[in-house]
Amino acid sequence: MAGSHDVDKDKESKSNFDVDYVIHYSIPPTETAEAEAAFTQLITALAAAGFATEVRPGRTRASLLVLVRLASDRLLASQIYRARVQDWLYGVRPDAPTPPGSGSGSGSDGDEPVTPAERLRLAYLLITTPRNEGGAGVTVGAKGTGPGARQWRFVKSVFPLHDRAFNRRWIGEWSKKYQLEAGDIDEIRDRFGERVAFYFAFLQQYFLFLLFPAAFGAAVWLLLGSFSCVYAVVNGLWGVVFFEHWKVKEVDLAVQWGVRGVSRIQHPRPQFRFEREGVDPVTGEIVKVYPPLKRLGRQLLQVPFAAACVVALGGLIVSCFAIEIFLTEVYNGPFKQYLTFLPTILLTVFMPTLTGLLTKLAEWLSDFENYETQDAHQASFVQKIFVINFITSYLGIFLTAFVYVPFGKILVPHLDVFQLTARRFTAEGEPLPTKSWEMNPNRLTQQVIYFTVTAQIVNFATEAIVPYAKRRLFKTVEKVQSELSDKTADQVAKDQPEEAEFLERVRDEAELDQYDVTIDYREMVIQFGYLSLFSVVWPLTACSFLVNNWIEARSDAMKIAINSQRPIPWRADSIGPWLNSLGFLSWLGSLTSAALVFLFNHSTKNGVDASPWDIRGWALLLSILFAEHLYLAVQLVVREVIRKFDSPGLQKERAERFAMRKRLLQRTVDHDVTEEVGGPGVSGGEKITRETLEDEVRRLSMAGQGTPERLFWLRQRGADETIQVGRALIAEAAAANQTKARK
Amino acid sequence: MAGSHDVDKDKESKSNFDVDYVIHYSIPPTETAEAEAAFTQLITALAAAGFATEVRPGRTRASLLVLVRLASDRLLASQIYRARVQDWLYGVRPDAPTPPGSGSGSGSDGDEPVTPAERLRLAYLLITTPRNEGGAGVTVGAKGTGPGARQWRFVKSVFPLHDRAFNRRWIGEWSKKYQLEAGDIDEIRDRFGERVAFYFAFLQQYFLFLLFPAAFGAAVWLLLGSFSCVYAVVNGLWGVVFFEHWKVKEVDLAVQWGVRGVSRIQHPRPQFRFEREGVDPVTGEIVKVYPPLKRLGRQLLQVPFAAACVVALGGLIVSCFAIEIFLTEVYNGPFKQYLTFLPTILLTVFMPTLTGLLTKLAEWLSDFENYETQDAHQASFVQKIFVINFITSYLGIFLTAFVYVPFGKILVPHLDVFQLTARRFTAEGEPLPTKSWEMNPNRLTQQVIYFTVTAQIVNFATEAIVPYAKRRLFKTVEKVQSELSDKTADQVAKDQPEEAEFLERVRDEAELDQYDVTIDYREMVIQFGYLSLFSVVWPLTACSFLVNNWIEARSDAMKIAINSQRPIPWRADSIGPWLNSLGFLSWLGSLTSAALVFLFNHSTKNGVDASPWDIRGWALLLSILFAEHLYLAVQLVVREVIRKFDSPGLQKERAERFAMRKRLLQRTVDHDVTEEVGGPGVSGGEKITRETLEDEVRRLSMAGQGTPERLFWLRQRGADETIQVGRALIAEAAAANQTKARK
Repeated sequence: MAGSHDVDKDKESKSNFDVDYVIHYSIPPTETAEAEAAFTQLITALAAAGFATEVRPGRTRASLLVLVRLASDRLLASQIYRARVQDWLYGVRPDAPTPPGSGSGSGSDGDEPVTPAERLRLAYLLITTPRNEGGAGVTVGAKGTGPGARQWRFVKSVFPLHDRAFNRRWIGEWSKKYQLEAGDIDEIRDRFGERVAFYFAFLQQYFLFLLFPAAFGAAVWLLLGSFSCVYAVVNGLWGVVFFEHWKVKEVDLAVQWGVRGVSRIQHPRPQFRFEREGVDPVTGEIVKVYPPLKRLGRQLLQVPFAAACVVALGGLIVSCFAIEIFLTEVYNGPFKQYLTFLPTILLTVFMPTLTGLLTKLAEWLSDFENYETQDAHQASFVQKIFVINFITSYLGIFLTAFVYVPFGKILVPHLDVFQLTARRFTAEGEPLPTKSWEMNPNRLTQQVIYFTVTAQIVNFATEAIVPYAKRRLFKTVEKVQSELSDKTADQVAKDQPEEAEFLERVRDEAELDQYDVTIDYREMVIQFGYLSLFSVVWPLTACSFLVNNWIEARSDAMKIAINSQRPIPWRADSIGPWLNSLGFLSWLGSLTSAALVFLFNHSTKNGVDASPWDIRGWALLLSILFAEHLYLAVQLVVREVIRKFDSPGLQKERAERFAMRKRLLQRTVDHDVTEEVGGPGVSGGEKITRETLEDEVRRLSMAGQGTPERLFWLRQRGADETIQVGRALIAEAAAANQTKARK
Repeated sequence: MAGSHDVDKDKESKSNFDVDYVIHYSIPPTETAEAEAAFTQLITALAAAGFATEVRPGRTRASLLVLVRLASDRLLASQIYRARVQDWLYGVRPDAPTPPGSGSGSGSDGDEPVTPAERLRLAYLLITTPRNEGGAGVTVGAKGTGPGARQWRFVKSVFPLHDRAFNRRWIGEWSKKYQLEAGDIDEIRDRFGERVAFYFAFLQQYFLFLLFPAAFGAAVWLLLGSFSCVYAVVNGLWGVVFFEHWKVKEVDLAVQWGVRGVSRIQHPRPQFRFEREGVDPVTGEIVKVYPPLKRLGRQLLQVPFAAACVVALGGLIVSCFAIEIFLTEVYNGPFKQYLTFLPTILLTVFMPTLTGLLTKLAEWLSDFENYETQDAHQASFVQKIFVINFITSYLGIFLTAFVYVPFGKILVPHLDVFQLTARRFTAEGEPLPTKSWEMNPNRLTQQVIYFTVTAQIVNFATEAIVPYAKRRLFKTVEKVQSELSDKTADQVAKDQPEEAEFLERVRDEAELDQYDVTIDYREMVIQFGYLSLFSVVWPLTACSFLVNNWIEARSDAMKIAINSQRPIPWRADSIGPWLNSLGFLSWLGSLTSAALVFLFNHSTKNGVDASPWDIRGWALLLSILFAEHLYLAVQLVVREVIRKFDSPGLQKERAERFAMRKRLLQRTVDHDVTEEVGGPGVSGGEKITRETLEDEVRRLSMAGQGTPERLFWLRQRGADETIQVGRALIAEAAAANQTKARK
């Protein structure tokens, strides 16, 4: 009945009992009657869509766990067929799938295997597609005001269950390996879908590519030191090669996984609010319309949003930066050792608050822009997130490099405002003791090292260790709570003994966070930015990232396997909007690297701090302009060169297309053969003697039937006659030539 | 038998006798035997491929005219079907074509009409495809060393015949119209194929778009004068909008004409020389391989080629430029009025020679790069041509704007070298009389006006009038010659009276040049370059171009209809490599406009000539940098905005795809319905009572047959039970809540 699931040997403790999805259903203290009615509707809808259901109590009385499974393999097979036909229509598959029924009954369609990811994806789609399209129409977390959103407001989450045996093997294997292989990525794809697999593939490629700048950077660091022109050029070139190579690799992977063009199959966003329903003038389809010009107007809000980000985050960073410089480099009064922590404290307190607020704003704005599809919404959101992260991550270094160092001498004296402010609070009213300012020449390097080493470690800790600790804590608190109320404690005892362990696991997973691959991408893209923009300051950057990413890959795997619910295995055919961010950072790197080399290479050589008046502005601008255009030209060349190489994915695509074309053209040729037998016109078809031919011409012209065209083509009927006439003409020409020659 | 050709009323004089192609076959004075053997092979090959043939003498004894026609409509139908299947496989058509046989017998396949262009294209393909693929394998103008190239070396040209009636109507209509309409372009497409139609569509769009800068430019010229910042910004914006709009329009037209993606169907280049035949590892196809790295190596020769162009053409232009300045602005001696023509004479003599040489070199280089496909070869050639034309067209103005004006004061004194040289030739040995140099502030404007008005007129004359005059002259010469030798004169008399007029026409057309759309594109792209790069100097530029292009469209039509052989109606889905050139010029315009405004706006204001020392370099660079990035940002925005609008072509594509999807999904759904009847799992399928259910569980567990999974899903069989259990749990929770509340 269900042979398609891999089952471990110690079934009793690891089996998921073939559960496809768990619906976490909350029972509110009030509204019990509504919850009950909605529950009935939920189960009815699921059953109508073709799911088998089981219900079990949650950890506390406040929730139920509805366990859901595709009721029949035939339903799965037909869903798969339908999805594959859609893929074919959208050009994702080169070939039409074979209809089910010819399959072996194990849920597969003919000979194509069905991965757990495909099964889970289709099951999820069946749960969430509207009822009039054959699904159960369950929506999760829809904040809209539609009847659907209200109806399912008790559904807290819908998630698949982890395959513990696989996870254990996966984590175990990875911890023993130096480097991920293609097979590892494929396994992730089979379990967690292409979207997650693309992240790990990107991480792996990035890791491999990092080996070069790590080695080269270390060499440069030893031999040439910081701000080396050679390093800047090589680093920029590396960035281009990496970016262009990934673009090809991405397509390659998409083809290998059979998901190329999958982004054309758009999932409608349930939160989309249409303004009117219109009939499409072309297709006659009823479409939900939201005026694009209105959306464009709303998209323009991105400009004030970006401005707000710059003002809010920039203001905070600039203030803290100024305070820090004042305290560490100018101020020399009492409590200095404590006061130096002030900017750090300010940043730690306000930065997450502000970022959180702005992220909320970005979410709201993306929602306000009201996209029809998930992808468009996500892309818009990612764009905004990128703006926020760009400012929080890079502005500090930009300030040091392009404001503090060149203009420090002019600006630092203005920091006396802090002194004035401080004087008001101190009773004395005397000027605070200061020392004469001297630029800290290592400040830039220190800052880059902080962001590329310390911040990465802190980030790893918050990402990997904190959630685990938090969950431990919550569990303990919950246990204490449930021990206090005796009723819930014996709920566990109520479980059937053979299910008890399983249900405990399900309850655990219901409390986990959802895995969001966006966060992981963001981290990597921002990291790439440090490398591209600032690594010329400290060439060891790539070494640090190499170590970090080795751990990162494993900690991300752990995060998915242990700290998150199993992700819904969505498909994807690229890393999506992050690709643009990568390209942008790589391009911007050409500008900043040139500027950094130009500004600092001199100053370190001369041993003195350069002021903007020492630097010739036009030379700086010229070097930036030159570096940028060199970058763009090199990018074009690299793109062309990389395209020349054949990749396994494109080979596969070609092979598939070739096979299909061969098959179909064969059919045409067969058709031709049957057509051409007895076809006229070609010599060998009808045999006509000269006599009958001339007779025909005469007959036709006498009867007045022959059009001039017809008569024209009857003059030399058949190739043989044409040849005869032609040869005669050629012979004539030859003869004429000879006579001419004789003359 | 041949109803698919439109036939005019005065058939006798206009009919092409259904001739599809004319093969102009030369008979060399020597090698007559070879020519005769090859002629036999030619006719045999044509007959085998399915052509009816007629042979007639050429104008002189040195050539034959082989008239060729697809022998049967069935053959045409099967060729069309085959081509359409290929289109479908490459994704050009959304839908598979209906096989022939169901057609009405008029050469069309079912309901889709067959245009003359399609018929001619397929006939040409049938003539040229290799014999083992079913064609006649005739190659024209192949300079290769293969056996095919040698065999067909007597074939001078293969060309279709003009449809005189259509041409007359076409030219007549256009001369009466102010503006071309979409219908006109469609008609061109039906007759001359999409490649030519794309040119006229581009011309029409460009003409329409020119209206705006013409009007705006005139207003600016009146109100603000030259070097207006406002004009530069608006002009740049216009360039972006035009470029981005054309990119969309191009796709739109391709979809409307059903040729989108046609560039994927590559025609192999017969001149391609493979290094080895390899078996494709994937498809098992035997492919002709030329190592891509070797080609890359050869492509690198483009760099020295570009350098050679710069040195040769640049040297010539710079020399003439210097001589001109010396003679007009410094020299004040005898013969001045004659000597001023010297640079013009030098340019007129050497420029075409050099350009011709370099074009030959470009041709050779493209051939040396040895591309597999026609398109790749053409793209590579166009790229080189663009480099040559860029230098010849723009370098002069660049020199004036960015060398002569800012650095004139420093450089002009060095022009004394001419004086020294000249002094050697003059006997006196005295210094030549000179006047003190003063920069000619109008030089730049004069030069721009020359290139945008005078040169356009000259160009028109050489393009439209010269070939006509040349042809007249040749014909006269030929007539005189043939009158001298009496034999050829009576050849005309030999023609059948009903064919005589027709054959005279064929002989005329055989002597015409081939139409090359590349030349026309080049002209327009270079023109666009003047507008984008330099029109800020003289805002009336667009007005001049507007007038020019109105005539250009008509003269190009005349050129095709009268001065050239009818082009082989190739398909295309874009204007091809010229698009990149347009984008490049539009982008470069942002830089030059900014620089021109910055350099000259000040100088005209102050009334003095600015030397480079007056201009702050960093400010110039900053303004260029700013303008460029503003340009790139605006381009992104415009691209996004233009994409938002729906175009008729994309609507059509959507409609087609929708129709096909609907049809195919309907089939799936039908399939599902038959599948799901009697499908298990969903309540309502099998009716099982509680008793039988519990019995089954017991039976299974006792027999040890039931896997834990199976038993798990039997606990709550059916949705009703799940609902019951769930409601009980909810009620329990509610009760607990109530008791808690009571406590």
